[in-house]
Amino acid sequence: MEQRNRRLGRHIPDPVRAKNRKAIVDCLRRRGAAARIELSEQIGISPATVTIITSELLEDGVIREKQAETGRDESARGRPRTRLELNPEAGFAVGIKISMHQASVSLTDLSGDILGAETIPVRANRDAPEWIADICMKQVQKIVSVSGIDPDLVLGLGIGVPGYVEYPSGLVRWAPVFSERDVPFREIVEERTGFRTFIDNDANMTALAEKWFGVGRTFPTFLVVTVEHGVGMGLVINERLYRGSRGFGAEFGHTKIVVGGALCRCGQRGCIEAYASDYAIAREANILGPSVATDDPIALEARMRDLIAQADSGDPAVVSVFERAGSMLGTGIANLVDILDPPVVVLSGARAHSAKAFYGALRQAMEANTLPGTDTSVDLRIDLGGDQVWARGAAALVLEETLI
Amino acid sequence: MEQRNRRLGRHIPDPVRAKNRKAIVDCLRRRGAAARIELSEQIGISPATVTIITSELLEDGVIREKQAETGRDESARGRPRTRLELNPEAGFAVGIKISMHQASVSLTDLSGDILGAETIPVRANRDAPEWIADICMKQVQKIVSVSGIDPDLVLGLGIGVPGYVEYPSGLVRWAPVFSERDVPFREIVEERTGFRTFIDNDANMTALAEKWFGVGRTFPTFLVVTVEHGVGMGLVINERLYRGSRGFGAEFGHTKIVVGGALCRCGQRGCIEAYASDYAIAREANILGPSVATDDPIALEARMRDLIAQADSGDPAVVSVFERAGSMLGTGIANLVDILDPPVVVLSGARAHSAKAFYGALRQAMEANTLPGTDTSVDLRIDLGGDQVWARGAAALVLEETLI
Repeated sequence: MEQRNRRLGRHIPDPVRAKNRKAIVDCLRRRGAAARIELSEQIGISPATVTIITSELLEDGVIREKQAETGRDESARGRPRTRLELNPEAGFAVGIKISMHQASVSLTDLSGDILGAETIPVRANRDAPEWIADICMKQVQKIVSVSGIDPDLVLGLGIGVPGYVEYPSGLVRWAPVFSERDVPFREIVEERTGFRTFIDNDANMTALAEKWFGVGRTFPTFLVVTVEHGVGMGLVINERLYRGSRGFGAEFGHTKIVVGGALCRCGQRGCIEAYASDYAIAREANILGPSVATDDPIALEARMRDLIAQADSGDPAVVSVFERAGSMLGTGIANLVDILDPPVVVLSGARAHSAKAFYGALRQAMEANTLPGTDTSVDLRIDLGGDQVWARGAAALVLEETLI
Repeated sequence: MEQRNRRLGRHIPDPVRAKNRKAIVDCLRRRGAAARIELSEQIGISPATVTIITSELLEDGVIREKQAETGRDESARGRPRTRLELNPEAGFAVGIKISMHQASVSLTDLSGDILGAETIPVRANRDAPEWIADICMKQVQKIVSVSGIDPDLVLGLGIGVPGYVEYPSGLVRWAPVFSERDVPFREIVEERTGFRTFIDNDANMTALAEKWFGVGRTFPTFLVVTVEHGVGMGLVINERLYRGSRGFGAEFGHTKIVVGGALCRCGQRGCIEAYASDYAIAREANILGPSVATDDPIALEARMRDLIAQADSGDPAVVSVFERAGSMLGTGIANLVDILDPPVVVLSGARAHSAKAFYGALRQAMEANTLPGTDTSVDLRIDLGGDQVWARGAAALVLEETLI
C-alpha cells in the first residue's frame, strides 16, 4: 500500500516558529481553551507572534474559535472575548495496544474521545508478529469504515507494546508478547497499512495519555506505573516524555528489589515484576490450586479474575498472595519516589483495578519505605480509565509526532 | 556581620536577557572558549544579541577575550578571530564539605581551580552545628587572607552536607552529620560570616562539579553516585540539576534492594547504604575483628583504610566483604540505569577509591542486572578528583546561583 506521510496543515514552520506553534498547542491542551492574550502571557511570546501563529493553526484547522459563554471580557473593553481551543475533529488517531491475551484497537479524535473500539483475543507470544499485525489491520479498516470519517484525516497509528522498544525506529528489541527478539514491528505494520505508524513502550503511551488528557494538564512532571501482565513505567519531566539516552528509559519492572530473589521471565532474579505482575501472582497462587500455565495468557487472565474475587471475599491465603505482591510494588514505587521525588504518581494498567488487599499493602509499603526524615507523602492516584487509557495514549503519541 | 548579597556585575538583566546570558555562560563553560559567531550558532540566538550580551559580560568581567593562538580564522576573511572565555578571576567561591570525620574548606576560582584548602577533623554527629560552623569560619577567614584575594570578590559559600537538604531554604531536614533534625544551617552560617551561603546535598554538589568542570562538558544528561560514609546520587538532565518536586530528589542511598534486609542507620531495612557504605562494610568486617564503633567517624575512617589494604593484599574474608558491598552497589546502579538510561555514570566520593575487589564486583553486578535484551553497556567512570571534587562542587553551586 502507498505510504501516506501526513502532517496536519500545510504550514511547514521553521524551527523557532515550530517551537512557538508547539508551545501554543501545548498551552491549549493544558488549559482546554484560552484567549490570545492569555497565550501570550502564559508562554512569554509577543501578542503579535501569537496572532500570526494562531492564524496559521486556525487556517490549518488544528484549532478553532470558541465564543465566550459568559458574555464579555472586561479587559477587552466591551469586545466579546474570543477563546481558542484545539479542534477535536482536525484529525484522528488509531490506537493499538498489544497485551498477552488480547489486542485492543480504537479510533480517537484529537480530544482523546473514542469513536470506536474492538478487542481481539490473541495469544501474543504464540502468534507470529505478522499475523498479529494482519488481524489488527482488519479491525482498523472496519472501525474507520464504520465511523464514517475520511480516512485521509487519520494522522497515524500509535501502537503500545510491553517491553523494550527503540524509539523512533520502532524496533521491538525484547517484548514478552513476541517470541522473537528484534522485531521490526513498525515496518511490518506500515507495509500492511500505509498509515504513518509510531510504536512505543505501552507505559510510555500511558504517560503521554496522562500528559495530554490527565494529570499532565496540572503537573509538568509526574510518573505513571503500569501493572498487569508486566510492570512498567512512564516518566514525564517538564512536559516531556523522558526516553533516556538509548530510548529504553524509563524501565521499572526489571529493577531489583530482592537481590537473588524470585526468578523473573526476563531470566534475572529479584525484579519487581517477578513479585507484582499477573504471572508472579498466579505462580504463587498455583500452590493453592487450581494450577494454570502462567505462559497461557488467556487462562492467566481468567485466573486473575477468580483470584481477585477470592481475595475480595476474604480468603486468607489468597489475601496474603495479593498483600505480598502489593507490598513489593509499593516498595518499588517508594524507590522511584526517593529517586525522582515526583509530585504525583499514577497507577495504571489492568491491575490498577486489583484486589483490595493489593492496594492496602501497596500504600502501606510506599509510606513505610519513602524518605526517612521527611513528613510529606506523595499523591498516589489510581487511573480509572481502563482500556480507554491505551486508546488515549495512542492518540497522544500520534499528536506528539504530527501536530506541529 | 553585615550581610553581603553579591552578584557578579552591575547589569541586572530582564528574564529574556537573563536566559540568553545564562546560555552564553553555559556554552563557554562547555566549550572552554568560543568566538561570538559560534555562540550564535550553538545557542540559536542572533549575532546582534550575542554582541550585546557578550559586551555586558565583558564589562562585568565575567568573560574575557582570548586571542587566537593559531593565527587567523579563514571564515573571518583575514581578521584575527577573537574568542571569548570565562574569566577565572572574576570571582571566587568558598567550598565546605562536611563529612562524618572531617570538614574540608577550600577557595576556588571560576575555573574550579583551588587556591587554598584546609581540612579540620570533626566528629560531626557529636559536635553542635554551631560549633562546626564556627571552626569552619575560622578556616575560611584564614584561607581568604592567605590567598591575598579581595574578600569582596568572594561570591559566596557553597556547603555540601550528606542527607536531606531543602533547597534553596538551606534547612537540613535530616543528615547523619547532625544529631538534630531540621537544622537551619544556612542561617547559622550566614549569621556568622555575612557571606551569601548555599547549602545542598553533597551528591548534588558533586553533580554540579561534573556539570561545570567534568563530564557535563560533553553530556547534557548524566548521573553521579557518591559512596563513602553514605551512598548518594546527583542527577543532571538536559544541563539542569534535577531536584524533584520537594527538593529532595534524587535520593539513592535509601532505595531498597533487599526487602526486609540489613538495618540501615535511617531506621529502615534493605537500603543500598546498609550494604555499600563505610559503616555497612565495617559492620560486617567487625565480625572478623578488631571491632570498631561504626558511629565513631574517625575510628571508622582508619578502619576503612586498613580493610582496603587487607582486601588489596588478598585476605579472602575481607575480599568477600568488599565483593558483597560492591555487588550490592552495582545492582543498585543497574536499577538507576534501567530507570534513567543515562549515557554515563560517574562514581565519586572517598570510596570511589576502594578495594579492587569492590570495583570488580560492582561492574559485574551492573552488567548482570541491567536491561535484559539490550547489548549496550553503560559508561561507568571513576572520578579521580578526590577532595577537589567537593571544592569544585561548591564553586559550581555558587556559580549556578550568582553568575547571571
